[in-house]
Amino acid sequence: MLKLYHYWSSVCSQKVRLALAEKNLEFASQHINLFDFEHWSPDYVKLNPKGVVPTLEDDGRIVIESNVILEYLEDRFPAVRLRPQDPYEQAMTRIWIYNSEEIAHHNVNTASHNPRHAVRHKAKHHTREEMQAIAARCPNPIIARRFLQRIEHGVSEDEENQAYAALDYLLEMMEGALAATAWLAGNRYSLADIAMAPFINRIEVLKRPEMVSAARRPRIAQWWQHVQDRPAFKQAFSFANPDKSDPLQR
Amino acid sequence: MLKLYHYWSSVCSQKVRLALAEKNLEFASQHINLFDFEHWSPDYVKLNPKGVVPTLEDDGRIVIESNVILEYLEDRFPAVRLRPQDPYEQAMTRIWIYNSEEIAHHNVNTASHNPRHAVRHKAKHHTREEMQAIAARCPNPIIARRFLQRIEHGVSEDEENQAYAALDYLLEMMEGALAATAWLAGNRYSLADIAMAPFINRIEVLKRPEMVSAARRPRIAQWWQHVQDRPAFKQAFSFANPDKSDPLQR
Repeated sequence: MLKLYHYWSSVCSQKVRLALAEKNLEFASQHINLFDFEHWSPDYVKLNPKGVVPTLEDDGRIVIESNVILEYLEDRFPAVRLRPQDPYEQAMTRIWIYNSEEIAHHNVNTASHNPRHAVRHKAKHHTREEMQAIAARCPNPIIARRFLQRIEHGVSEDEENQAYAALDYLLEMMEGALAATAWLAGNRYSLADIAMAPFINRIEVLKRPEMVSAARRPRIAQWWQHVQDRPAFKQAFSFANPDKSDPLQR
Repeated sequence: MLKLYHYWSSVCSQKVRLALAEKNLEFASQHINLFDFEHWSPDYVKLNPKGVVPTLEDDGRIVIESNVILEYLEDRFPAVRLRPQDPYEQAMTRIWIYNSEEIAHHNVNTASHNPRHAVRHKAKHHTREEMQAIAARCPNPIIARRFLQRIEHGVSEDEENQAYAALDYLLEMMEGALAATAWLAGNRYSLADIAMAPFINRIEVLKRPEMVSAARRPRIAQWWQHVQDRPAFKQAFSFANPDKSDPLQR
């Protein structure tokens, strides 16, 4: 029995839902509301000491970190293969899985703050003191620090520009990779594509959607259309936002 | 034929040399002097578009990113196994491989700047203008930005403290993991141990070596002794600093 602790629009949760859907794996869903800070509750932190989503439970065994979960699902449920078998092609797959975390995740998070995260925090009407008390519950000093800095200073235009420059660099590598092959790590859809897809989805609703437009990056735009055409994509992204008052639907 | 592009004291290069030594794999060595900025030379950037070490060449095929290289070596040369076969144990191994990059690498780099990196840059007597020209050669906007910020502002006491807080958090998880098993991902030496070992080696020569002392973290200290006792460790760490004028020997 699989159980997924996840948040509807978290890019890392979307990665794992995509892999589960491609592999036709059913799972019990436990939605963790990041804007109610359920990921820093004592019970959740026992499962996930870093205080992040997603967490996968497999018959009582706990796996955390979206990239580790992707590889785990592949090793545990190999009937539908999402990782090539050749060692070199596996390495090319892992480069994209790694890029999705090192470059895409960190910078998409920064670029999401002003247009999305801050809006939702504000809608909750927490005072600064309440937010500081909330940060004190976060078990992860790296994330607690980032959260506190954003409460105090927000994300500056300079920080946003840096984040977009990093994303631009990554998208340029991606456009280059797609010149050689139909999918990111070869001619078959793989965990490389699954790892990157949620970030393209997110960039489209941020401040510079032209970064992934057909006019500017035709190969990414075509790849993105092919990703969205997959039944598993529709299934993984159909998970509804349980907060009906949330203005952001993607 | 394997060829490794690496720097003698780079933690990521040490990871890969450790895996090569455990697997008894011979390789041609191409030392890339980071303090002469050889990693941002046009020829090297063709191999490694991110401008970082190490890079592995295997009969003309190029693999980058130390964690991806570790998994590649395991998939390509499985005679000596450094990754468990059970999917869950593999996931536990990958958590540490991931932690070594996400938490250890980033923060050890910050903590290394004042006592080690700045000293070596200063020894080269580059002017600020020369350093800016050097940064302009870096193909990776994330690393170029960090490099420029350090030229202008160095690493503040606050940044150093944050880095040590993050390392402390990681070491606490590590001490906890070693309460259950002899090695990080079970009862066999694995890529998890290889990924973390270079960071303990580095922390010992930074400003807060007590973080990994037997008095403060007895399980890490014992684990670290066992790591150093391995013949492959001695081999991987015997790679001499080619710069005899460099005061730092570790």
